[in-house]
Amino acid sequence: MTDFAVTKAMFHLPKGMIYLDGNSLGPLPKAAAARVEQAITAEWGEKVITGWNRAGWMAQPTELGDRIGRLIGAEPGHVVLGDTLSIKVYQALAAAIDLVPDRRVILTDSGNFPSDIYMAEGLIKSLGRGHELRVVAPKDVANHINDDLAVLMLTQADYRTGRLHDMKALTAKAQAAGAVTCWDLAHTAGAMAVDVQGCNADFAVGCTYKYLNAGPGAPAFIYVAPRHIDRCQPALSGWLGHEAPFAFDLDYRPGTGIERMRVGTPPVLQMAALDAALAIWDQVDMVALRAASIALTEHFIAEIEARCPMLTLASPRDPHQRGSQVSFAFAEGYPVMQACIARNVIGDFRAPDLMRFGFCPLFIDMADVDAAVTVIADVMDRKLWDNPRYKKVARVT
Amino acid sequence: MTDFAVTKAMFHLPKGMIYLDGNSLGPLPKAAAARVEQAITAEWGEKVITGWNRAGWMAQPTELGDRIGRLIGAEPGHVVLGDTLSIKVYQALAAAIDLVPDRRVILTDSGNFPSDIYMAEGLIKSLGRGHELRVVAPKDVANHINDDLAVLMLTQADYRTGRLHDMKALTAKAQAAGAVTCWDLAHTAGAMAVDVQGCNADFAVGCTYKYLNAGPGAPAFIYVAPRHIDRCQPALSGWLGHEAPFAFDLDYRPGTGIERMRVGTPPVLQMAALDAALAIWDQVDMVALRAASIALTEHFIAEIEARCPMLTLASPRDPHQRGSQVSFAFAEGYPVMQACIARNVIGDFRAPDLMRFGFCPLFIDMADVDAAVTVIADVMDRKLWDNPRYKKVARVT
Repeated sequence: MTDFAVTKAMFHLPKGMIYLDGNSLGPLPKAAAARVEQAITAEWGEKVITGWNRAGWMAQPTELGDRIGRLIGAEPGHVVLGDTLSIKVYQALAAAIDLVPDRRVILTDSGNFPSDIYMAEGLIKSLGRGHELRVVAPKDVANHINDDLAVLMLTQADYRTGRLHDMKALTAKAQAAGAVTCWDLAHTAGAMAVDVQGCNADFAVGCTYKYLNAGPGAPAFIYVAPRHIDRCQPALSGWLGHEAPFAFDLDYRPGTGIERMRVGTPPVLQMAALDAALAIWDQVDMVALRAASIALTEHFIAEIEARCPMLTLASPRDPHQRGSQVSFAFAEGYPVMQACIARNVIGDFRAPDLMRFGFCPLFIDMADVDAAVTVIADVMDRKLWDNPRYKKVARVT
Repeated sequence: MTDFAVTKAMFHLPKGMIYLDGNSLGPLPKAAAARVEQAITAEWGEKVITGWNRAGWMAQPTELGDRIGRLIGAEPGHVVLGDTLSIKVYQALAAAIDLVPDRRVILTDSGNFPSDIYMAEGLIKSLGRGHELRVVAPKDVANHINDDLAVLMLTQADYRTGRLHDMKALTAKAQAAGAVTCWDLAHTAGAMAVDVQGCNADFAVGCTYKYLNAGPGAPAFIYVAPRHIDRCQPALSGWLGHEAPFAFDLDYRPGTGIERMRVGTPPVLQMAALDAALAIWDQVDMVALRAASIALTEHFIAEIEARCPMLTLASPRDPHQRGSQVSFAFAEGYPVMQACIARNVIGDFRAPDLMRFGFCPLFIDMADVDAAVTVIADVMDRKLWDNPRYKKVARVT
């Protein structure tokens, strides 16, 4: 059983801050600075080029991949790290399209993260084979799965509301129609137990800077089902995905298994921070995490609804249909969130009217929820948001 | 005038080591650990999500890009950092191909770095439009430039021998034939003054972990000539290359100028290390650097040829035709290099028979060259390489 008081003590949180934005960028694991310092001073500094072997840099993308694999229910040896999530989406979708050469429809929804949609647009345009990206409302996805479908490309949890797709049911339906699936786990890896094997997912990708707490610009991961990997011909065929990178052959031959989804040199310093973050995750029971997450979000919803009648729940009410975040809609949500942030309760805002709050049991407890609710209720009760300085839109929120 | 004794003191080099492998992975700038620690503790730790604005993370890819731009002769605002070099090659080549829609030949040479060739193969296969990757011997490149040519894709300095292509002449010839050019500066950015403007280059890419000393897995850069950028429709159309990333629109619209070549979230910790490395480069006069580099390589060649008659120069003898590295060929080059490495003279080996030595005046001086030559000559004179333990091939060299 995970003791979340113990994990909370493993994070650095700014003094006085209640950080409900771990769904956007996770906070700093205290061990990360020393681990990165080790990578810089003892590894890069002392081992220099030999660090690729002697500090294990070359093997990290798959070694760290397996530790993430446990959190998402992957078979060992089928997750690899590298690049950014957008690049991993491109790789997964390109490989998925190749598996269904006679069909042209890629189905996604308007709740997918825009970058996934943009990457799909770019890929489709490059391919020039008449693929169609069909973007439907989240609730209509199941009804659009038919025998035209090549690839179902979805994000499991909606970045705006935390609404969950039924990954198992949609995967089964898509596969029954002869399609393959690409799942983006950006808002579920580390937010709950994911089960790519149990869901029979074909491809899955995710990032490590949100719930996994690996820091700004941390690398992404990709999972390919063992039944597909040997047939995948990487579109981004980089040397570290080659069968023998250091043979320096002039012809590309895909590497063994998931290694072929590597592209260029791995970001060693970011990997070190990820290593420190995963040292916490290695201890976490995902069933306990989910139970704690649901308790936090249920309590938050009940308290906000009791004390802030102006705010409308935008996340699913059923905890089993939402991830580890809660969103409330309010026309003046932007200045409300700015007023909360000014009072050290950190969530974020997504247009047009959503205030998002993320709840990660690793560092958020019931006392934090109560303290956050007190601030939010005060901002609402006293209309503290009705102030010009909170209405000025910042560049990034 | 750059004082290279001063820059040398800015690097940490392992005690007793003569590091002639900065062309593969640059050594640690002493300031990097503190700069990255700042990014971790003061930025990520204290600012958390607000670091994207308040710590300047979002602007770093172009700000750091301009500092690299000075080293490669780029116009301000036309270099951006991110991803790996393989990804940047893919982006540049995809955009270049788009500019010459009626032609199908991509010309490169067998001295190009294999990953560039692999990425081109993957792109061509994805495009499925019958493009041909024509790989010729380096000396034959000019003769293969004709009216069929769409894109000339070359690495300016051969990774094996340091042989330089005449970037200006080949660019002019390719452009006169109606083609566009993609230059990989991996072995020239930071090795000498590069002049993308003066050469009228169309696209250029490079990495920052070699001569630029930004550390293992440091991000890559891309330059697009101002005359082309507004016509480039990114193949890897990620959200941070969108005109308004935080509007979360469902349709991709390319960002302004070079910003459209961004893809996903920048690697903030690697960017911090790069910032520290560039703080050294900001002080370096590139003409002085090149003069010092030539003096070092000329001295090394003269000394090795005088003292090691078994070794055959594989790099161009004319210093103006080679970069900042020197390679010698020897059938038993692999165990020779292992014997040198065991004696703390670090170079590397490239099959079938090349011993590579990189010379970066920022941290290598004449005394280092003399000391290295003494070790190499001793290894050769006493046949110290003829030892089974040096003949066992390691995974990565």
